[in-house]
Amino acid sequence: MKENGYIGVFDSGLGGLSVLKEVHRLLPKETTIYLGDTARVPYGTKTPATINRYAVNCAQALAQRTPLKMLLVACNTVSAVALDHLREVLDCPVIGVVEPGAQAVAAQKFDSVGIIGTTSTIASGAYERHLRALGFAGKIYAQACPLFVPLVEEGLVEGSIVDAVAERYFAAIPQEVSAIILGCTHYPLLLNSLKKLFPSELTWIDSGKEAALKAQRTLAESGLLATEKFGSNRFLVTEGCDNFLQLSQYYLGQSISADAVELIDI
Amino acid sequence: MKENGYIGVFDSGLGGLSVLKEVHRLLPKETTIYLGDTARVPYGTKTPATINRYAVNCAQALAQRTPLKMLLVACNTVSAVALDHLREVLDCPVIGVVEPGAQAVAAQKFDSVGIIGTTSTIASGAYERHLRALGFAGKIYAQACPLFVPLVEEGLVEGSIVDAVAERYFAAIPQEVSAIILGCTHYPLLLNSLKKLFPSELTWIDSGKEAALKAQRTLAESGLLATEKFGSNRFLVTEGCDNFLQLSQYYLGQSISADAVELIDI
Repeated sequence: MKENGYIGVFDSGLGGLSVLKEVHRLLPKETTIYLGDTARVPYGTKTPATINRYAVNCAQALAQRTPLKMLLVACNTVSAVALDHLREVLDCPVIGVVEPGAQAVAAQKFDSVGIIGTTSTIASGAYERHLRALGFAGKIYAQACPLFVPLVEEGLVEGSIVDAVAERYFAAIPQEVSAIILGCTHYPLLLNSLKKLFPSELTWIDSGKEAALKAQRTLAESGLLATEKFGSNRFLVTEGCDNFLQLSQYYLGQSISADAVELIDI
Repeated sequence: MKENGYIGVFDSGLGGLSVLKEVHRLLPKETTIYLGDTARVPYGTKTPATINRYAVNCAQALAQRTPLKMLLVACNTVSAVALDHLREVLDCPVIGVVEPGAQAVAAQKFDSVGIIGTTSTIASGAYERHLRALGFAGKIYAQACPLFVPLVEEGLVEGSIVDAVAERYFAAIPQEVSAIILGCTHYPLLLNSLKKLFPSELTWIDSGKEAALKAQRTLAESGLLATEKFGSNRFLVTEGCDNFLQLSQYYLGQSISADAVELIDI
């Protein structure tokens, strides 16, 4: 694959823009194409068979429109259940968010870790499997937090409701835990509220940020880092262009021009 | 259509089972077929074009499997945006939940009414349109409550989190309002918590219950009421049979046998 391919990034909806934000920050010379499958969001409550089917739809939609140098799956649910399948159908490197998050924990030799994510991500046990495969021997506390995504999507990232929901979920994770993995791309937006519930020395692992770092390392090792941007970043959604444009500032930290966003049917 | 056709009922997910519960209570001799489009839930955040497409998929899935004597759309979002389109493609009576809810308010001559529903239902203005068309001249307070569905789906129907979320939404509806329409089939499960926030003389209108009453009236007027059940009630889901079986008691108030539930792809 040539240097001037696109980095394709997809998510079930808009949460993956928090991962794309990290890609843009770390790799400003790369050209990206993002797909948010907004018509079928959320994936986190769906079965593995459905998630596999949707993931292939998304990857093919990106690959049909642009030459991909890399696919970054910015969705924990898809990363947890469909990554092997995606690697079979694509001929470029495929990076998920689960493995990089687990690698960050294993590398830092923590003696215990909490994992928070959607119902599907937690039920899949994917973080635990990756952590154990990487030699992590500490205690693992996994907790599904299904209300966090709707809260973020309503713009509720702080205040009494967020605090009450977070306290409910974190009752299962001891205060002495060394690190907590943010196992969903919506969760970085809640971080200021979540931090209040634990001692300041706890390390928060943002899986999306770790995935962007892994993308950078992978491209550098293959000599595929772009030396300059060859085009504009593109955005695809399966419904709701206007909503996407309105919310892009919130998730991506920058606004997007209307002509960069395309409505597609997959 | 003959007396022994099925009453078809569909919803984006499981919430419509609260409407089916009312159908079973009022019309115990009717045979029903329910479809929950659980693979694509929720509809409430999707655009009208997508909702129309999904609604036709659901109606056709029911009509292809059974002779329908009536279709009851147990989804406020679909009722708000896709009912006319469904009436074009089906040759049996089609009843939604919006019009019966509005009729109940108009008939009781209230001087003001609150409407709560999903983002799409409220944005559609469908309840207001029906109320005004029925001559309702009072003040209308419409409020989207997007967190209510995730709360119910997590089993949270009472307690401090529900109270805090409800207080947030109801800040926009004055205490003196005469009635509030529960404009989403999940909301009846929250009713005990919601009632605490308003004076006891306020009338709560359950749109699903009103729709079941309208189905009964429509069948009676056409002489199509069943005199005895001719078969077992059937249930279709687009994913997650096991989850459906587990949660049916919660929404439907009775458990379902595993062989009554079929997984379909639409």
